This record gives sequence, structure tokens and C-alpha cells, in this order.
Amino acid sequence: MTQEQISAAVEHAHDHQETYLTGFQELLRIPSVSTDPAHRADVQRAAEWIAADLSRIGFKNSRAIPSSGHPVVYGEWLGAGDDKPTVLVYAHYDVQPVDPLDLWDNPPFEPVLKDGRLYARGTIDDKCGVFVNLKAFESIMQTDGRLPVNVKVFFEGEEENGSPNMEPFVIEYKEMLAADLLLISDGGSLPDQPLNITSVRGIIDGEVFVKGPARDLHSGSFGGIVHNPAHKVAEIIAALHDADGRIQIPGFYDDVAAVDAAEQQRMDEQNEQMKAYMKERSGVPAFWGPPEYSFMERATAQPTCDVNGMTSGYQGQGSKTIIPSEASFKVSMRLVANQNPDDIAAKFLRFIDSFHCDTLDIRGTVDSKSWAAQLLTQGPAVEAINRAFEVVWGKRPLMYRQGGSVPIIGMFQRELGIPITTLGYGVGDNGHAPNEYIFLDYFYLGIDTAIHFYYYLAEEKANNRSTI
Amino acid sequence: MTQEQISAAVEHAHDHQETYLTGFQELLRIPSVSTDPAHRADVQRAAEWIAADLSRIGFKNSRAIPSSGHPVVYGEWLGAGDDKPTVLVYAHYDVQPVDPLDLWDNPPFEPVLKDGRLYARGTIDDKCGVFVNLKAFESIMQTDGRLPVNVKVFFEGEEENGSPNMEPFVIEYKEMLAADLLLISDGGSLPDQPLNITSVRGIIDGEVFVKGPARDLHSGSFGGIVHNPAHKVAEIIAALHDADGRIQIPGFYDDVAAVDAAEQQRMDEQNEQMKAYMKERSGVPAFWGPPEYSFMERATAQPTCDVNGMTSGYQGQGSKTIIPSEASFKVSMRLVANQNPDDIAAKFLRFIDSFHCDTLDIRGTVDSKSWAAQLLTQGPAVEAINRAFEVVWGKRPLMYRQGGSVPIIGMFQRELGIPITTLGYGVGDNGHAPNEYIFLDYFYLGIDTAIHFYYYLAEEKANNRSTI
Repeated sequence: MTQEQISAAVEHAHDHQETYLTGFQELLRIPSVSTDPAHRADVQRAAEWIAADLSRIGFKNSRAIPSSGHPVVYGEWLGAGDDKPTVLVYAHYDVQPVDPLDLWDNPPFEPVLKDGRLYARGTIDDKCGVFVNLKAFESIMQTDGRLPVNVKVFFEGEEENGSPNMEPFVIEYKEMLAADLLLISDGGSLPDQPLNITSVRGIIDGEVFVKGPARDLHSGSFGGIVHNPAHKVAEIIAALHDADGRIQIPGFYDDVAAVDAAEQQRMDEQNEQMKAYMKERSGVPAFWGPPEYSFMERATAQPTCDVNGMTSGYQGQGSKTIIPSEASFKVSMRLVANQNPDDIAAKFLRFIDSFHCDTLDIRGTVDSKSWAAQLLTQGPAVEAINRAFEVVWGKRPLMYRQGGSVPIIGMFQRELGIPITTLGYGVGDNGHAPNEYIFLDYFYLGIDTAIHFYYYLAEEKANNRSTI
Repeated sequence: MTQEQISAAVEHAHDHQETYLTGFQELLRIPSVSTDPAHRADVQRAAEWIAADLSRIGFKNSRAIPSSGHPVVYGEWLGAGDDKPTVLVYAHYDVQPVDPLDLWDNPPFEPVLKDGRLYARGTIDDKCGVFVNLKAFESIMQTDGRLPVNVKVFFEGEEENGSPNMEPFVIEYKEMLAADLLLISDGGSLPDQPLNITSVRGIIDGEVFVKGPARDLHSGSFGGIVHNPAHKVAEIIAALHDADGRIQIPGFYDDVAAVDAAEQQRMDEQNEQMKAYMKERSGVPAFWGPPEYSFMERATAQPTCDVNGMTSGYQGQGSKTIIPSEASFKVSMRLVANQNPDDIAAKFLRFIDSFHCDTLDIRGTVDSKSWAAQLLTQGPAVEAINRAFEVVWGKRPLMYRQGGSVPIIGMFQRELGIPITTLGYGVGDNGHAPNEYIFLDYFYLGIDTAIHFYYYLAEEKANNRSTI
């Protein structure tokens, strides 16, 4: 019976590929950049667009619920019955900033299809996570008249900004969000190799400002007597790591948890394959990092600290002989299991304070922080995902630790206390860079995979009622 | 007799203040930014404007002579007779870039007079040097029909770009430029305290580029395995100085000449006065630099190394979690007597090369370089300057070592081999910063001072024929 229902829904999805693609492009055209206050109305517009689509599909209570920051898109379809699990589906509809704009081959919010790739900001991170679920629901509702499980959707609008307002929101709406399983539709897979994410890193974003003279000074008149803020910024950044890349913030590694034997074995098995893949994607001449850890450990099981941007003084053509008035840098740290973001933030700020001097003013800030999280590695939900991929892609997923962060996962885990798994649809590249794209074939496969997953989850859960 | 001639010329200048100011504003409106290729035609236009004014005043052979870079404005008036000295008058008509533009209270090329200050890019550095001399010549020619000494003018158009094409130009035109004295009209004085510059520092401008991944990478996926080019730039900058500000480029101080006893004594005498003055101008909480040298030694007799600008990654609002593809910085070094710019440039580039690693591509460049120079400290020319200031300002100048550079001075000294002194008219501030201004009163006093100087020079030289 299930197989027929799946086939009908998949057939419906295939018949409507053109309509679905048009809808996806419409959503991609809304520049929902959450970090930039200038795009505030665009973020709101994206939220309302999605809420309207949910209503049309048949979800109840669909709306853009205001938070203290950007709105959450919520909607629910709870007609599957009490014996069926309730899945809370998470994705985010906000996107990264687009600069450097001049490195884009096409305007980032005008989707362009070329060589089987759909280019636009948000294609893989993470409007596909929103849209693929919507179209799976639509295809099932159109053919089956109902969903195989109860579904609540929670589409966030400030993931790329570190989700500063989601914790109070989740606390306020805890009852509304109650569910048996949280499905995270963010992140993606490799071409021909689906991934089932078993952990994500946490993240802390910070900034450091060094203020010197009241304004830029002539480097001839003041060179030798005025402390240059760019030099101090360099001194601080240089002190963040030792020569092998070990982070030097005192106590930074204190609480890093060891990974268990099964995870360690999986990382060892994946080491060479991932190295080859990441080498091609990054274009670096050689990899880097503390030599006592394997490639996969450094990429996923060890914390990091990276400067994301750095600025001071004159940056135009030619020279300008000044001592800059100020210098600053942005930094992000990726945390692993058991590192408390509040504790690491305090250690970071103490480290910055340790550079205090009477010739410059130094100030560190922490703008957002989130915990790392541990996800399901077995049970009905994992099995439903693995089967869906196996049937649709012809390959079972790699059980994979992820280096990136989905800040909300750690928070959901701590606030809602429900099991979590991920089902990411984005196969493409340049998620945080110019020329972001998704492979169109994988976009369509994503819808098929989601359809399979929701039916299989009902089935697996029926066979194993003691867990999810 | 001389006093009457001076008085007539000064009176003429006073009667024409309004016309002269209008002319100055016209010159200030031409955005002759020499470092920016986009302003190439503006630099040419400024040169032609000045050459036309020289012709109108009565100079011969006035023209904008092309160089391999920006043109030199040349003109001569040689009717004073063979028994009179010939003065080669130097100033530069190009200006610094204007950014950060948003820190200007008024558009930089629309002069605004406010509270006795004339604001515009180039007011003190160094269009006043050009214009004050022009108007002194004009006032004398209009009242006396002739100049008291022979004069050649050499107004440069690429000083703010490090004068890359002036050396071959001076070699080519050596005969045309022959003179008994080179008068540098660049730099200025303090309010109520004229300065007579006895030395200038040399300068080297360089840039360092560090290239990492082929494009910006996601700091989650690639953090811990890809070497961050911003970290390497910070490492290099941090290594330029020790904790007390001593430059760590190997061999950097090898050839630094000790200053003579008279200069040392003058510096000691000026130390506290200059410290108070520079503190107010810079707005820094405390001064900085190697403690074994006095304030004046650090500011004028010791070499420096300053980062002028630094850039990498995301610099907009909010955060962007990337590992930047590249990072770079601009640096300038101020050299003192006996340091060979070629030698220091080679040492700098070797130092940059020493940071070579297999995870990043590092490249250093040197864009321009010039020698420090020693100027006249006594004799007829110095006496003429000191008398002119004493009469016009009511105060004899401080004999003063200058921390800044006039790249062409060292080159002139080496190529033409003639004695050099300076007569700067710019009393104001923000020469390399937003809201550059000159005090209008001092602009007019500058014309009076120049008139006095040219007459006094003829007189002093007549009394002392053995030197200049």
C-alpha cells in the first residue's frame, strides 16, 4: 500500500517539476539577507511568501510569527492520528550576504540555470531545505489527501546571523513545538554520496576593535611615536594559534569531549575520501592544522578559530602613508561536544583583554554563540532516512560528522529535549561564497527523497514503537 | 632700497588677497590625486593650469613637461643677472587620495572657508607650496618688474605616489635644472612657530599579498584544515616589531647614522614642546616606541615601519562565517640618513620571503623608495629664511628635523648635488586625512614671507659670496 502512495506522490512531483522550479526561483529572488538591516523587509517578505504556500498546500495555522528579530514561519498538519509520530521540520529561509558582489557571474538574486546548475544565493543554503519539504508535502497532499505522519514546520529567518532570538522564541512556544522528532533540513550531501549527519559543531562569532589616534595620522610625522592599531590587531590574531594551528586562548580545549569508538572508526574510514573531495573544492596547495589529529578529526571533531574578516586604514589603489585610526577583525570559533559557548566566549574575551595597553583602546565582543550537538545515529528515523536515500539515490548515506554549525540544533536539543536527525537536500557548492548553486537534478531528487522519508518514517515507527 | 621694494610687493599682495584666494580655490577644485589612475586627466589639468599662470606672471618656457608618469610644471625667469644666485623652487601639485570620504564634513574638492580655515584636499599638502610662490612672484613682478634672484620652478605631480618617474626626469633635464640652491616648498610650520627643516626621512612603500583557497570558504566545512591567509598576514605584521616597537627585519638598523652633537642638542631642547604639540594633534592616550630614544629621536632620527592598510574577507555589517581567500597589507618605512633604500627594500623582501610555507602563497612588493636627506643648517639661504620669518611672523624659525619624507629631496641631492633648504607655508592640519585645512591668515602670511625671502636671499648672498 505505502509503495503505491509513494509512487503516486513522486509521479505528481515529476509532473510538476516546471511549476515547482518556477516557485523555487520566485523564493530565491527575495534577498532575505538576515545579517543586513537593509534587507529586513525582504526577510519578512520571504517569510510571508512561505506561510502563504503552506496554507495553500493545506497546513493549518500557517503564519509568519514575529520574534524579537526575524519571523519564524510556522504551520502544522496534525491529521495523521495519535498513533503516528509528530515531526518538527526545521529549515531556514534567510541567506548569507552576497559580497564580494563583483565575483558573482550573475546577480545573486536572479536565478540562472546553466549546465544543470541553478545559480543564486540561497540555492543550497538553505532555501532548498524549505522548498523541497514544501513540495514533498504538496505532492503527498495532492495525491493522498493526507500526510503519513503529523508535521509541524519551523522555518527560521536568522540562521545566518547566529539565531540570536530563537532561544526565547522556542521557550515561549515550547508547547506549540512539542514533537517526537526534530528533522533538520539544512546542509547537504556530496554528489553521488548522501550524508546522514551525526553531529554538528557549535559556533561563536565575535569581533575585536582596536582604536588608536583620533583620526588617520601622517605616517611621517607620527611614525615612531604613535602605536599603530593595525599592529595590535595583527599581534592579537597572530597569538590566537601556535605554529601548528593549535588555539592558544587559555583553557580553550579544557572541555573538548573525546569521540566514541564507533564515530572514531567512521572518521578513519572516511578520511581519504573526504580529503580528496575537500582538496578539489578548496583549491588549496596543501591542508593545514595540528598534526596530531587526522584530517576528519580536524574538520569535524576538533574546535577551530578563524578570522573571517580584517580591516584597517587605506585599502584602495596605490599607497597612502598613514597610521590608521583604527583596526578590527571578525572571528568565528567552531565548538565541539561538551564545550560550553558561554564559557568559551568568556575565555575569548579574557584573552582579548590580556592585550590591554595604555597606548590603544582594545574591545572584544561576542555576537552570537551556540552549542555543538549530537544527533541520532540509529533507530526508525535514521533507518527511514537511509532507506529513502538508498531507494532514490541508489546509495545508503555516509554517517557523517559535520564541520559546520546549525546553531539552532544545540538550542533545540537543550530546550525541547527531543531526538534530532538531519535530512539535507543541498547538493551543490559555494554556500557562503559567490556563485552559490544547486545541481537541479538533485533538487528534484530531494523532493522524491522527502516523499519517501515521510512514508518510511510512519512505517519504521510502526515496526518499532519503543524509540524514534 | 630693498625694503621699499619688499613693501611695495607686500602691499600689492595684500590688495589682491581676494583675487589670489579665488585663484587658489580654482586650483584646489582640480582633483589631482596622483595615486589613482582614474584621476590621470585631472593631474594633467592641474599642471596646465599652473603653467598658464606662470606664463601670465612673466615666466619663460613655462609648460607641463611630460614624464613617464605625471607631468612636471617647469618655468624660468633668469633676468636677475649672472651675479645673482639661481634658485630652483620645488613644490608638488598632486594630492593624497580622499578616502574615507564619509569622514569629510564637506566635499574634499569644493573649498569651504569656516572659522578662518580653508578646507579642501591639498590646501596644506602641497598646493599652498605651489600657489604661495606663484603669488609672491606675481606681486614682485607687478611692482618691481623683475625678480631679485634668478628662478626656475619645478612643480611635481607624483609626490604622493612616491615620485616613481622623477629620477629619470631629473637626469634627462639636469642641464635645464642647474641652480645654486634648491628651495623645497613642501611641509609647513606650527601656528606661531615657523620651522626651518634640517632633515627629512626617506621612505619605502610596499605591499604584501597572501593567497589561500581559490575562493572564500565556509569556515565550518573548512575550519581546522585550511590555512587562513588573514592569520598569516597577522603573523607577518606581528613579527615586524618587538614588544617595544623595535623593527625586527634583519639588518634594518645596520646603517643608521648617528646625528651630530648640534642636532642632538636641538632635539633635546625641542623634546617637551613637540611632545605637547603632537599629543594634541594625534589624540592618543600615550605615546609609543623604543624607550631608549627620546621622543624627538623616535619622531625624526630613527627609522619606522608602519602598516598603512590591511584587508581580508568580510568587512560589512554583521558576521560572515568564511575563511577568506586572500589577505594583504600596505606598509611604509621611514628611513634616516645613510640607510640605502635599495638595501632596505631587499631586506624587507627577504624578511617577507622568510614566511614561506606550503599552505599559502606569499608575495611582497616594493612600490617606491627614496633616500633621507640632510639640508642646510646655516649660510645665506638659511639666514634669508630665518630673517623672512622673523620679520613677517615676528619669530625666528625652529631648526627642525622632519619625520615625514619628500622623496624627491634625496634624489635631487644625489643627482643635482646642490644645497637644499626648505620654506614651507602650510600651517593647518590633516594633510593625509579627512578635513585637510590651511589657516587662511597663514596662507596670506606665506606670500609675504616668500616675497621677503627672495629679496633677502639676494642681499645675504651679496654679503657672503663664498657659499649659499
